Amino acid sequence: MDLAGYLTDRRAMIEAALDRLLPATDRRPERLHEAVRYSMLAPGKRLRPVLVLASAEAVGGDPEHVMPTACALECIHVFSLIHDDLPCMDDDDYRRGRLTNHKVYGEAMAMLSGDALLTLAFELMAQNRATVSPDRLLQAIELVSNASGTRGMVGGQVVDIESEDQDVSEETLDYIHAHKTGALLRVSSLVGALLCGADEGQIESLKRYGKSIGLAFQIADDILDIVGDESKIGKPVGSDQKQNKATYPRLYGLDESRKRARNEVATAVAALDAFGSHAEPLRAIARYIVEREL
Amino acid sequence: MDLAGYLTDRRAMIEAALDRLLPATDRRPERLHEAVRYSMLAPGKRLRPVLVLASAEAVGGDPEHVMPTACALECIHVFSLIHDDLPCMDDDDYRRGRLTNHKVYGEAMAMLSGDALLTLAFELMAQNRATVSPDRLLQAIELVSNASGTRGMVGGQVVDIESEDQDVSEETLDYIHAHKTGALLRVSSLVGALLCGADEGQIESLKRYGKSIGLAFQIADDILDIVGDESKIGKPVGSDQKQNKATYPRLYGLDESRKRARNEVATAVAALDAFGSHAEPLRAIARYIVEREL
Repeated sequence: MDLAGYLTDRRAMIEAALDRLLPATDRRPERLHEAVRYSMLAPGKRLRPVLVLASAEAVGGDPEHVMPTACALECIHVFSLIHDDLPCMDDDDYRRGRLTNHKVYGEAMAMLSGDALLTLAFELMAQNRATVSPDRLLQAIELVSNASGTRGMVGGQVVDIESEDQDVSEETLDYIHAHKTGALLRVSSLVGALLCGADEGQIESLKRYGKSIGLAFQIADDILDIVGDESKIGKPVGSDQKQNKATYPRLYGLDESRKRARNEVATAVAALDAFGSHAEPLRAIARYIVEREL
Repeated sequence: MDLAGYLTDRRAMIEAALDRLLPATDRRPERLHEAVRYSMLAPGKRLRPVLVLASAEAVGGDPEHVMPTACALECIHVFSLIHDDLPCMDDDDYRRGRLTNHKVYGEAMAMLSGDALLTLAFELMAQNRATVSPDRLLQAIELVSNASGTRGMVGGQVVDIESEDQDVSEETLDYIHAHKTGALLRVSSLVGALLCGADEGQIESLKRYGKSIGLAFQIADDILDIVGDESKIGKPVGSDQKQNKATYPRLYGLDESRKRARNEVATAVAALDAFGSHAEPLRAIARYIVEREL
């Protein structure tokens, strides 16, 4: 399939929806809305919302029917980036090649922009009831909030911070990645299908798919931090090393890390065996996650 | 009615539920869970969750049926307090007479504790589907997220910060209070009833009630900052003035502010005319809001 064309098309759909759903800058408080849009509409891969749409399609669903939920996942992702970049966290000046939110709008506004995006995510999901069943939607809200909080992304961020300048065990590294980036990718991979009526077996397959691409994605990101092209990744190469972050290459070396990433992609694609051609976008996305960077 | 007994009883129910629903400190990441519990289980009025229970009762509902949503409202309130106290915001060292979250756990952990509580709130609400209708619950999630984000509490915090050291208009002061504290009190006053099958007329009445008690509460808080007893309010008297915050006494003087607060309480009680004795707790709470402090 033509993945590049698919991604271009889906990103355009998502960005049009975001522009429509995000608060307008001519409404009070204007500067907050500017700050929110600054980070949300910065160029990005839109991987999480694309996964939501692709997982809806994998079970024959209409991607437009899950668009508010797709946008919600992007809101949660961007909220986490804004907070992660703050001085009390990673203290990063650049993100995706542009100044980070707090460098432009100040720390208070950046923190509140993140808070606003996190609440907006759940508002958008609740509004998705126009096109999907209320029972499924409540299940989805529970899964997404669980994946974002202490048992998911926030939990991973905490252990990541606690592990700086420490010798980390393999178990801790797995915990960080399974939670910090993995949890949201996992839930993105199944929530579209859940909302479009997927059965239990399909949900289980998509869970395995999401788990593997989440891990592959994180390993690829770690590798990119060492061998990547600064102009492409939009932040200084080596910033994980500088902060003594727990990474795969640090624990296993580059070659073994590459091998593990490729194995995870193969596992992800195999998990989709029972799905037909509708799941082709999900398969292509799995391959793309490592190919873009390794 | 015996309001003191009612409040003692409801607070005990709420605190038992919170203790059950908050993440355990023997589970990873332990320190995050400690930080979350430190702020959530600090002594407090529990006004928002009490309002959720009382509004359920006002339409003949069972308070236990809306307990997860009541706890969610407390999570959102405490999240906002933790973030508000951070150095980049109000930079407060004390809250409710104890060190603020970041003074004990550090800034990063405090910010992430707030983030965790905000996501937990929506997880708890989604789980409330065990006892209430999914359609009503999705409406409630939409209202609560709306009241918490840029059109509600976060929006109010932003304008509050922007107004420091500025001459504020009456319109801006109203905006800050209607959003920063008002939005969450308003939604707390109606969401319990909504989940227990309230009709449109009842919801409208509870909206008017919530709007008035929200305003009364804020005026009372502003007055307390000037004339209050430091040991009771748990933070230094005069901290709003020190920060040149927009307040009612600053704009109208103490006497006129007291009069306005009492008028709002009368309006709130009048809004409940069509309710019977089931709404007695809501009426008593309205009176208590100003009596405790004026």
